[in-house]
Amino acid sequence: METKTENQLPTPAMLIDLKIVERNLAKLADYCRTHNLKLRPHTKTHKSIAMAKRQLAHGATGLTVAKIGEAEVMREASSDLLLAYPALDAFRSNRVAELARECTIRVAIDSPLAADVLQDAAKRAGSKIGILVDLDMGFHRTGLQDTASAIALAQDVSKKPNLRFDGLFFYPGHLKAKPDPDAHKIAMTEMGAKLSETIDALAKACLQTSIVSGGSTPAGYQSHFTPELTEIRPGTYIYNDWNCAAPGLVPIEDCAAHLICTVISDAVPNKVVIDAGSKTLTSDRLGMDPEHGGFGHLPDYPEAKIVRLSEEHGEVDISQCARRPKLGERVRVIPNHICPCINLQDQVWVKTEEGAIEPLRVDARGKLN
Amino acid sequence: METKTENQLPTPAMLIDLKIVERNLAKLADYCRTHNLKLRPHTKTHKSIAMAKRQLAHGATGLTVAKIGEAEVMREASSDLLLAYPALDAFRSNRVAELARECTIRVAIDSPLAADVLQDAAKRAGSKIGILVDLDMGFHRTGLQDTASAIALAQDVSKKPNLRFDGLFFYPGHLKAKPDPDAHKIAMTEMGAKLSETIDALAKACLQTSIVSGGSTPAGYQSHFTPELTEIRPGTYIYNDWNCAAPGLVPIEDCAAHLICTVISDAVPNKVVIDAGSKTLTSDRLGMDPEHGGFGHLPDYPEAKIVRLSEEHGEVDISQCARRPKLGERVRVIPNHICPCINLQDQVWVKTEEGAIEPLRVDARGKLN
Repeated sequence: METKTENQLPTPAMLIDLKIVERNLAKLADYCRTHNLKLRPHTKTHKSIAMAKRQLAHGATGLTVAKIGEAEVMREASSDLLLAYPALDAFRSNRVAELARECTIRVAIDSPLAADVLQDAAKRAGSKIGILVDLDMGFHRTGLQDTASAIALAQDVSKKPNLRFDGLFFYPGHLKAKPDPDAHKIAMTEMGAKLSETIDALAKACLQTSIVSGGSTPAGYQSHFTPELTEIRPGTYIYNDWNCAAPGLVPIEDCAAHLICTVISDAVPNKVVIDAGSKTLTSDRLGMDPEHGGFGHLPDYPEAKIVRLSEEHGEVDISQCARRPKLGERVRVIPNHICPCINLQDQVWVKTEEGAIEPLRVDARGKLN
Repeated sequence: METKTENQLPTPAMLIDLKIVERNLAKLADYCRTHNLKLRPHTKTHKSIAMAKRQLAHGATGLTVAKIGEAEVMREASSDLLLAYPALDAFRSNRVAELARECTIRVAIDSPLAADVLQDAAKRAGSKIGILVDLDMGFHRTGLQDTASAIALAQDVSKKPNLRFDGLFFYPGHLKAKPDPDAHKIAMTEMGAKLSETIDALAKACLQTSIVSGGSTPAGYQSHFTPELTEIRPGTYIYNDWNCAAPGLVPIEDCAAHLICTVISDAVPNKVVIDAGSKTLTSDRLGMDPEHGGFGHLPDYPEAKIVRLSEEHGEVDISQCARRPKLGERVRVIPNHICPCINLQDQVWVKTEEGAIEPLRVDARGKLN
């Protein structure tokens, strides 16, 4: 194993502190145990088999993926996978059906077309695919709009010999990271009422809802306000990011992933340029302040602001800094949104509990579908 | 060679039409010949050795890269490379100096520190590195602010035995794609005056400016309004994108790269969801209308608008569409900004002049520095 010191990492270098990772994993695992919730982390954040295994070691019941390509990678860590994506084209569904021959795989869908396509694929493969019916609980991205459509789709699924209706699915993307647990509590309680209505209607149609899958990092610790939930699927919580820390969802000390950058220009007054642009930090803006929140946070220079990104340049306004970063200096950045940043790298670095720095492959990067 | 038909490509699939590529390359090559300008295309857009070779076949004099890792890849296509980036850390500079042993490599810098670091590296490697002095001509990202600083840096460089002062460099990033050639003409003429002043001052200091390197895709065809230019470095022009076509810089028919997507949900009223989110299209907004321009253009559904991206979902508002895309249908998207999209893929697809569809490796993807 290649071991380096931090100063031996060419920049930009994504460095992940395993002590913080372990603390983040333990905290949510404890919460889930306390509230009798299953935890099925979304692996889109880390895309790493080793990190998935850490989550499973903390008691995760299985893993969530967005793509069949990710499922095929994460199969090495778990044989209980949820594809949180309507895999309704022949390319995805055939691979899902193939994987279902050797492990438990469920797919969240919101259309009869998806049920038809997955049934056909599973029939050809001789496998059985679990289905969760996706409900729109307020994010308005995917998901059925009303109980009647959900019942109809569940009934459709339950009649297909190679599918198995397992329950309900939703993604509460409209619950943003903000320091107002009361607002989340109210929203989570309302979602519970809607879920309860659907579960009752399904029961009347003789359909059992074994799983109710929801959850996200921003709403994770309010999950008990939706008692209908049986499992949650947060992703970001393993590393956290500035979208979590800026609004106070987590303390900045819980951000496990820092991008180490070098100041490569100071020629323009009141500005330095770091070697991380949109091809490293992404153009994802800060959720709580998209217009003025900048493109990441410099914890050692909190008054600095990353005001503009080119592809390989990050322009940092240092006009408000009492102490200013110097040309050639290495500075740390906490990205706004860690998930797409990790996705840009073949390999990141981890700092072990013993202080060694080792490479970590981003195993499921580059899986397009 | 694996050959497919378009419908055999799993989505999202980036498909590049080589007929359009060849037309785009020929057009700018013609312009450069007419105006006696050297063309040194920026390979950041395609990151492909094969595409670089096409540019060289059209008469490009060499290639531009942003990273030493890209230079090490593009060395296969050309032995005349410009690193348009201040490589002032030990990791980059040592690799630059090593590569300079076997080919012509120039670096654009804007600080004495960069000159010192590159000199040390080149001395150790026993090589010589060409230097262009970076001037800020209005974009205010990198670049020296005045003639006096430029002269001082050029003199500093000229005294270092392993460096060679070759000329001046600037990036006119403030000249955006817009259908107002007069505004560009005025700006380009003003830049010419500043350059001329610096070149004269350098001459008085007995320093010859062999190269004046500028240019970009938006300002490319106005380069002759800056007669001091000896070469230009456009990148995007090979493929073009919605940032080029929306403001009328190029006709939409000149967009060579289309992302083929599948409609994977239509459950939410007035919306469909395609299988391309920020991990495929990036969060780069439309330059001419960041607030309301959406995240890409659907040429077959021009009234549709990609209003929100999650990592793997693109939400398309179809409320204004007379004809609406159907669930399961494959639709094309022209990305806002093609360069970072290509960077997200290990491999894209090309449609050859004969109509065959073949894979194209993105050779220089994933080079962090």
